[in-house]
Amino acid sequence: MSAGSMLARLRAEKPLVHQITNYVVMNETANATLALGALPVMAHALEEVEEMVGHARALVLNIGTLSPPWVDAMLAAGKAANARGIPIVLDPVGAGATSYRTETAKRLLDELDVTVLRGNAGEVATLVGVKAEVRGVESITAAGDPAELAREAARALELVASVTGPVDHVSDGVRSLSVSNGHELLATVTGTGCMSSAITGCFLAVNPTALDAAAEALAAFGLAGEDAAAVANGPGTFHASLYDALYALTPESLDERARIA
Amino acid sequence: MSAGSMLARLRAEKPLVHQITNYVVMNETANATLALGALPVMAHALEEVEEMVGHARALVLNIGTLSPPWVDAMLAAGKAANARGIPIVLDPVGAGATSYRTETAKRLLDELDVTVLRGNAGEVATLVGVKAEVRGVESITAAGDPAELAREAARALELVASVTGPVDHVSDGVRSLSVSNGHELLATVTGTGCMSSAITGCFLAVNPTALDAAAEALAAFGLAGEDAAAVANGPGTFHASLYDALYALTPESLDERARIA
Amino acid sequence: MSAGSMLARLRAEKPLVHQITNYVVMNETANATLALGALPVMAHALEEVEEMVGHARALVLNIGTLSPPWVDAMLAAGKAANARGIPIVLDPVGAGATSYRTETAKRLLDELDVTVLRGNAGEVATLVGVKAEVRGVESITAAGDPAELAREAARALELVASVTGPVDHVSDGVRSLSVSNGHELLATVTGTGCMSSAITGCFLAVNPTALDAAAEALAAFGLAGEDAAAVANGPGTFHASLYDALYALTPESLDERARIA
Repeated sequence: MSAGSMLARLRAEKPLVHQITNYVVMNETANATLALGALPVMAHALEEVEEMVGHARALVLNIGTLSPPWVDAMLAAGKAANARGIPIVLDPVGAGATSYRTETAKRLLDELDVTVLRGNAGEVATLVGVKAEVRGVESITAAGDPAELAREAARALELVASVTGPVDHVSDGVRSLSVSNGHELLATVTGTGCMSSAITGCFLAVNPTALDAAAEALAAFGLAGEDAAAVANGPGTFHASLYDALYALTPESLDERARIA
Repeated sequence: MSAGSMLARLRAEKPLVHQITNYVVMNETANATLALGALPVMAHALEEVEEMVGHARALVLNIGTLSPPWVDAMLAAGKAANARGIPIVLDPVGAGATSYRTETAKRLLDELDVTVLRGNAGEVATLVGVKAEVRGVESITAAGDPAELAREAARALELVASVTGPVDHVSDGVRSLSVSNGHELLATVTGTGCMSSAITGCFLAVNPTALDAAAEALAAFGLAGEDAAAVANGPGTFHASLYDALYALTPESLDERARIA
Repeated sequence: MSAGSMLARLRAEKPLVHQITNYVVMNETANATLALGALPVMAHALEEVEEMVGHARALVLNIGTLSPPWVDAMLAAGKAANARGIPIVLDPVGAGATSYRTETAKRLLDELDVTVLRGNAGEVATLVGVKAEVRGVESITAAGDPAELAREAARALELVASVTGPVDHVSDGVRSLSVSNGHELLATVTGTGCMSSAITGCFLAVNPTALDAAAEALAAFGLAGEDAAAVANGPGTFHASLYDALYALTPESLDERARIA
């Protein structure tokens, strides 16, 4: 099954993607999800997360502005998702920047069966015990080869690791893929990493092969970035055009232009 | 008094519209309020909601990302609004999706004197006991005729019901209006329903006839959607242009082009 | 050192600016920070604010949607910043609108050594005991001359006061500057005041002379507003173009066009 056929399926089935994410990007990840063709829902109260995730076909957890009640909700939603076989994406925003973020990300990985870990090199390196510099939520330096980091993280954490950067690297520990779509303007808008995690959830909702879903999501999002950059004058118009591009992306174009290797 | 004259009044008087809403759309409903010509304020702490609503001419309550402290604040603000005769709009986002949302919406309707209930067909049907499918925050199916649903909800709940969809239906139980402005791109941007609730609050702040205010708000917002669609390339540029269109909308254009019947 | 040289330094050093701000504008102030060339981080949990601010070169506190746990986090982060000599910007959003806001702003000023207080005339007047009308978060009337208000606030509160309006006035109590850059469309988008506070934090991160940093920030932000207005069709496209303009602003253009007197 090709990336394009998965996009076509997503648009036909409009799966609900439950997101417990940070305050900074909620609107943006909801709009990216909707522009792509899936349905987002944001719900974080302990009173409803287990019921809400039961309606969803993927759960996205993002620790970008975490606090204890949100961590409790992530754990409850995650356990309910695991019990029902609903895939989970974890975005460990800022792991490595503070011990609270690092420990929370580790706890979520420990207590939940996470399907895809989507982060930058610094965040993922931190979670496999490799020294890295994370300045706030940006990866400044991470030692070594990101393809190797993805493979190592996949093996150590027993999940699909999705390490994004100038070239993205996705691995399940045995099989590895690189994705070379994207544009440097993506780094000038806050929350584009979070959006790529949301879109990973969208593809996981329709594609049971997590490694492929993760790569397809990054190709689709990267292509949207390329198309948005072609009409943008800077970060603000790029940001608006990114949703236009996600909406306009066709299965055919995704198949032709995806640079997954 | 025409819709246009109400818009002119709103711009002259710049009423404060207090909004206790969800994390996803706060920026968007504030900007829609401001672009139309009123003044938004977001405040949710129990420590200040009663005082803040005392300065406002309408209160908008939206349960899109609810949790217990926010529900407490909505009740406190709502009671203070009722005591001072300040109109309340309730947007029951996701009622029907989880029992926490359904019960919270019912509790707010029970304990407060709500002026206008603004929701999609699935949400409003849920609140009058009609079976409906709500996927996250989207109405997937709702049995029956939406005009009849608005009338039934208005009678059962003793308020103005404002049921939005491809055609909007507003009713006070006796008199009913339909509003045929709008554009399908509105469904591709998250929070446009929430924005229509905020704008309902803006019109209620200057028009004491709630049925007319609700219809005028939907006509104005729908027209902005039409104007934005004319210059947009997709959901992202549509979203940006929506604020341009709300700001550019004139009382004359609103009177000429409003399709309220 | 000129404003332009400070902008060049900021882009070379990419300082981390820790922001504890309101739900309405988090995405917007993060994007303004990033578009200018610094790195934003939003973190509000007591569990991590002291550690996070230790990595930052400025701290921005904004009470736009305050509640008790957020006030506790602001105090903890502020004390950690003071202990390490990290400059603090306080944006007293809505001070004067409710007593909770007024008292919280006064408490932050009392317990912390604030470097720059950035607010509108009504907010700043409230904090020095001058009667003012604040409608929600908008300054409606403030008695007297804003240049005098800035000087008086600087002296009374022993900080740099940055009073924004059609012309901005910045004072350390001895030396005062006015900044005449900007555009009226800035008042049609929510959170532009908050963005100017975030950008004040960015300049403070690289310029130890707080009075100059505050003026340079307002000139840079005002210039971006002028450039965005030149290509905008209203508040929505202006908002998107504002980030383009911050990103495109060059040190040379800032030096040539800044109207600091």
